[in-house]
Amino acid sequence: MAYKRIGAQTVRLETPPSVAAGACVVGQKEGEGPLRKWFDYISDDSYFGQESWEKAESVMLSKCFSLCCDKAKLAPSDIHYLFAGDLLNQCVGSTFAARDLPIPFYGVYGACSTMAESLSLAAMAVDGGFADAACAMTSSHFCSAERQFRLPLEYGGQRTPTAQWTVTGAGALILTAEGNGPYVTHITTGRIRDAGVTDANNMGAAMAPAAYETLTAHFADTGRGPEYYDAIITGDLGRFGHEILTDLFLRDGVDLGPCSTDCGRLIYDPAAQDVHAGGSGCGCSASVLCGHILQRMTCGDWPRVLFAATGALMSVTSSQQGESIPGICHAVALETDGGF
Amino acid sequence: MAYKRIGAQTVRLETPPSVAAGACVVGQKEGEGPLRKWFDYISDDSYFGQESWEKAESVMLSKCFSLCCDKAKLAPSDIHYLFAGDLLNQCVGSTFAARDLPIPFYGVYGACSTMAESLSLAAMAVDGGFADAACAMTSSHFCSAERQFRLPLEYGGQRTPTAQWTVTGAGALILTAEGNGPYVTHITTGRIRDAGVTDANNMGAAMAPAAYETLTAHFADTGRGPEYYDAIITGDLGRFGHEILTDLFLRDGVDLGPCSTDCGRLIYDPAAQDVHAGGSGCGCSASVLCGHILQRMTCGDWPRVLFAATGALMSVTSSQQGESIPGICHAVALETDGGF
Repeated sequence: MAYKRIGAQTVRLETPPSVAAGACVVGQKEGEGPLRKWFDYISDDSYFGQESWEKAESVMLSKCFSLCCDKAKLAPSDIHYLFAGDLLNQCVGSTFAARDLPIPFYGVYGACSTMAESLSLAAMAVDGGFADAACAMTSSHFCSAERQFRLPLEYGGQRTPTAQWTVTGAGALILTAEGNGPYVTHITTGRIRDAGVTDANNMGAAMAPAAYETLTAHFADTGRGPEYYDAIITGDLGRFGHEILTDLFLRDGVDLGPCSTDCGRLIYDPAAQDVHAGGSGCGCSASVLCGHILQRMTCGDWPRVLFAATGALMSVTSSQQGESIPGICHAVALETDGGF
Repeated sequence: MAYKRIGAQTVRLETPPSVAAGACVVGQKEGEGPLRKWFDYISDDSYFGQESWEKAESVMLSKCFSLCCDKAKLAPSDIHYLFAGDLLNQCVGSTFAARDLPIPFYGVYGACSTMAESLSLAAMAVDGGFADAACAMTSSHFCSAERQFRLPLEYGGQRTPTAQWTVTGAGALILTAEGNGPYVTHITTGRIRDAGVTDANNMGAAMAPAAYETLTAHFADTGRGPEYYDAIITGDLGRFGHEILTDLFLRDGVDLGPCSTDCGRLIYDPAAQDVHAGGSGCGCSASVLCGHILQRMTCGDWPRVLFAATGALMSVTSSQQGESIPGICHAVALETDGGF
């Protein structure tokens, strides 16, 4: 067995798994944003035909999974593992979406980093010889998240300028052992980093130090610099968090450059859509990865992408108890040339 | 790369990871039960010196992790991945315990199946060549769980006879690529199974069909029968759930036999401790595995154990919305002879 570790936090995959397909489903607001042409399905009904927003989130995820299977030309029973999670308490968005599926299931929780976590574990499952095909998927829903984490929607609470808007969206991605790419080539797994931020309306600031540390580890472990990648895309630091990340690197004399952006900055139009610091939620980086990013890779625009999803690992209870907000970031290198 | 799948839901590990150490920390009630001599640390303070039960749960988990590192003679920085989760919303028990650790972190959620899930993923990380050492850990706390899932403790609500008692306990287990066992030899990953049970006070009934299906898959995939194992230990079906599991197998003409038991039945004394149908919570199967089960293996009593933790994948919200309770069960074969 080949040894795959190439540093403190990074593994280089021996036989890089190939992305067989990605699919994304979003809500109306996301469908009105600048990435509209990359989404597979845009629902103008925030209930997705259900009677609660939580059920809507599960149905959105189920629809996304079905689309992904169709695009990959795989039956659900061909998929050996499903790694999924979401923001709802006890991850019921995912478990209720997966309860009708005949697929061995591992629930994961990484807050808004969940897409990178599930993608990392799916890639390890395939590269490690445990699966021919594995699926990573996640979701968030503005309405179910608002009432769980913040206030009832009916209350109409004011939002601070640093607040982000939880994306109604889901992303699913199927990896296979054989395929034509893009390939998952490297995984840098994040450590939890608590910078002491306590403002739950400024999660970009809480997560930016984690993104800085994971990207720094990725560059150190791989010997690559930012210039190696055509796009370095965090998610979801939002506008202020991404500025903090850029500043942290500038202090080291490293310019992340114009290829650096953030899913939370991409998904909405800040001039036309009232979202303050940008998008957030597991479904933000998931739907941007599985639509925009993958398609920009396959069309040749971006042969090399570093996808670095970030999560704020707090709960309502921890914030009410005065705790600070731990952050995490996992980075996954996707390349159209798998190095074969 | 060797191909490790041996059936629809099972992988046979190529170079079975070795258990370097297991550790468990529990509360006073658990320390008064029949397994008291197997626990590493029993706290008579349910607050573990903290000001809230949620913080207590994190401190319990941190203590358990430290004990495990000490027993394995490994520094935290020697551990390449930490897989952890718990029952609290957004898994803050684990994330706050891990925020001071220099270890790449993957959060997992499988309700009371979390110890089997984290153990499975840690074993795959080591067997797949991604890590020299990986840790799986999880916890639950009676007081933090009661107020989150049920009622304020001060209310003194009556419990139905089928209700289980959430264990205050944590378990941690470190796997290494090299070692003298016990070894993780097979992993059977569960599918979600919703049998339509809606009574959140009868989770054994909700989870038993999942345990039945995963164990059936394990026997079919491996060609082994129940008689292969010295102990088949589910967790946490409790008394009624375990009886349902036994009945389901008897319908197939399969007698699980006297070696079959359940962590929820083992941890408390039903005659002397008022726990109704037995123990539950992630910390139940975790503390029983990392104490009692591992030590019974290493002392030679049980050379072959099938550990099959079960989880009920509901939330307060899903139950309030009238949803049934999906169950899951993951099975992990532990053997003192790794087949080398």
